[in-house]
Amino acid sequence: MSTPWWLQPCQSVDLQQTAAAVARQQQLTKPAGSLGQLEALAVQLAGLQGCLKPRADKLWIAIFAGDHGVVAEGVSAYPQAVTGQMLHNFVNGGAAISVLARQLGAQLDVVDLGTVTPMLNLAGVRHLQLGAGTANFAHGPAMSDGQGLKALQAGRDSVLRAREVNSELFIGGEMGIGNTASASAVASALLDCPASHLTGPGTGLDAAGVSHKARVIDRALAFHEGYLDDPLQTLFRLGGFEIAALVGAYVACAQEGIVALVDGFICTVAAMVAVRLNPECRQWMIFSHRGAEQGHRHVLESLQAQPLLDLGLRLGEGSGAALAVPLIRLACDLHGQMATFAEAAVADRPA
Amino acid sequence: MSTPWWLQPCQSVDLQQTAAAVARQQQLTKPAGSLGQLEALAVQLAGLQGCLKPRADKLWIAIFAGDHGVVAEGVSAYPQAVTGQMLHNFVNGGAAISVLARQLGAQLDVVDLGTVTPMLNLAGVRHLQLGAGTANFAHGPAMSDGQGLKALQAGRDSVLRAREVNSELFIGGEMGIGNTASASAVASALLDCPASHLTGPGTGLDAAGVSHKARVIDRALAFHEGYLDDPLQTLFRLGGFEIAALVGAYVACAQEGIVALVDGFICTVAAMVAVRLNPECRQWMIFSHRGAEQGHRHVLESLQAQPLLDLGLRLGEGSGAALAVPLIRLACDLHGQMATFAEAAVADRPA
Repeated sequence: MSTPWWLQPCQSVDLQQTAAAVARQQQLTKPAGSLGQLEALAVQLAGLQGCLKPRADKLWIAIFAGDHGVVAEGVSAYPQAVTGQMLHNFVNGGAAISVLARQLGAQLDVVDLGTVTPMLNLAGVRHLQLGAGTANFAHGPAMSDGQGLKALQAGRDSVLRAREVNSELFIGGEMGIGNTASASAVASALLDCPASHLTGPGTGLDAAGVSHKARVIDRALAFHEGYLDDPLQTLFRLGGFEIAALVGAYVACAQEGIVALVDGFICTVAAMVAVRLNPECRQWMIFSHRGAEQGHRHVLESLQAQPLLDLGLRLGEGSGAALAVPLIRLACDLHGQMATFAEAAVADRPA
Repeated sequence: MSTPWWLQPCQSVDLQQTAAAVARQQQLTKPAGSLGQLEALAVQLAGLQGCLKPRADKLWIAIFAGDHGVVAEGVSAYPQAVTGQMLHNFVNGGAAISVLARQLGAQLDVVDLGTVTPMLNLAGVRHLQLGAGTANFAHGPAMSDGQGLKALQAGRDSVLRAREVNSELFIGGEMGIGNTASASAVASALLDCPASHLTGPGTGLDAAGVSHKARVIDRALAFHEGYLDDPLQTLFRLGGFEIAALVGAYVACAQEGIVALVDGFICTVAAMVAVRLNPECRQWMIFSHRGAEQGHRHVLESLQAQPLLDLGLRLGEGSGAALAVPLIRLACDLHGQMATFAEAAVADRPA
């Protein structure tokens, strides 16, 4: 059998351009290191894009949506109908990510992988209908292998569309009532820790609701025990359609050579699955923010990720990643446009 | 004697618009609070600007430059000539803040309050020449009362120019070799703590250099003891021309009704002096970032400030504040443009 696409090699980093970018940073008219994390960011982008002066102008934002059977266990503060309603809001321009995409000049690609709303047919949304949401993972696998493979491919397909228009930066966002429960379950399985460490209020559960959610996940982890050594099976049994799409997207970004800007808790869990499947894809990821959801911190640490923002965000939709885009663009501008000490006739400090 | 201008009242906050903005945030299509710090930011701006949908489009960046006599004590990694050279770089477009101002569509106002470079006459720079830098505060007051009052007024004058063009956001930046030493001295006096708590490497001192710098400051604090109960005398005796200009600017922003976006360590120390002089001006300040310089954290805490960014920046020039501008603009866009639950026909969560 041939190697499945998600295990195929990722694009490599251009070490020559990385070194040239490091040398350039040392020559710019500022104390060495004084632009902090933005210097490392410009250098990373130079290596990934294979050019001395990288850019993040052409931005692609894919929103993957799907419903979650586990909501039947009472793990969310909002009704499931909101997933479909928000799809409408995304393409009508009223959602947070719609506003951000407009301001940032991004192309917005809205993909409905399967919601509980029957016959949804919205202009501007790609309806894939892999199912009426996932099955309830408290009592069985969330999705079949067939559904899971289609969801992975849906993420990859969005990346291939992004590549067609020469996107320089890919944001994956998610929408799905109940998906923090799925993400906490996947993360607990992969990090082998009790659900309570990685479970938070999501859209707004109270303390009793969070405890209940963690108990539901712990029981599910016991139910699926024996299948959770494999990251792909963990994803299919506990994840969501939109989480699987994000996993496929992150792997495909690294294979197609597009920098992936990772959003909040759910996206970071998907990034962790992608790295478990194909470790090389890690270097194509930039982490945008540390969110309010408990567990995000742990998952970021497990990926040795140092995010750009820490603003207590917990909205999803790719909104935290979008908010970090201007920083990335300005890091590129500073790296590309500042004068060197020689150009500006400014004295560098004595050796 | 009439009350000096810096003690005159500040503009008040519009509590009706503050309340209206809070109510609007609750109605936008997102879980309540899910945009974290950006929600409070939009609400604060609504109250300050007195309108439900505030804006931060028209941006004014003032750079105040001055040299520091205390450099004679060996407290900086760079030679003093760099202050004048960087003035040239600011107006020639090669400095970090020049790049950022261009990208953000800001008006850049470069004010030279007095450097050691003789006869400096650069197109695009306002040369005020209050002196050839300050005097060495290790052996006497850094500036006379006359110089100090002129520096405060220079900051205010920039704010008055910003008001003429209806600026919605004011950034004060600074440039001055040796000015972290001045800022640490002023902060140590105001917070009544040893210099070592508030002294860092500035542009790049090694550990021995930092210890020496702290000892120089501690000796100066002892020398000036008895004059340091008054924030204005503390500023004049230990500060710099550009730090005094920032103090004047921050007070004037609050008096003229322009939101002040505070940059790094030196600017935050100036903000602390402004608040000691005229406490009402605190509410007109937004803090942009927590920098790498030791002491910034303490000064921010003393002002109960929660900055937007934490990227290990330590460049000055207003660059950290400029990097936070897109976040403020996007916070306004989200607040102003997102659909409400009613507008989008999205179910809010059950009460």
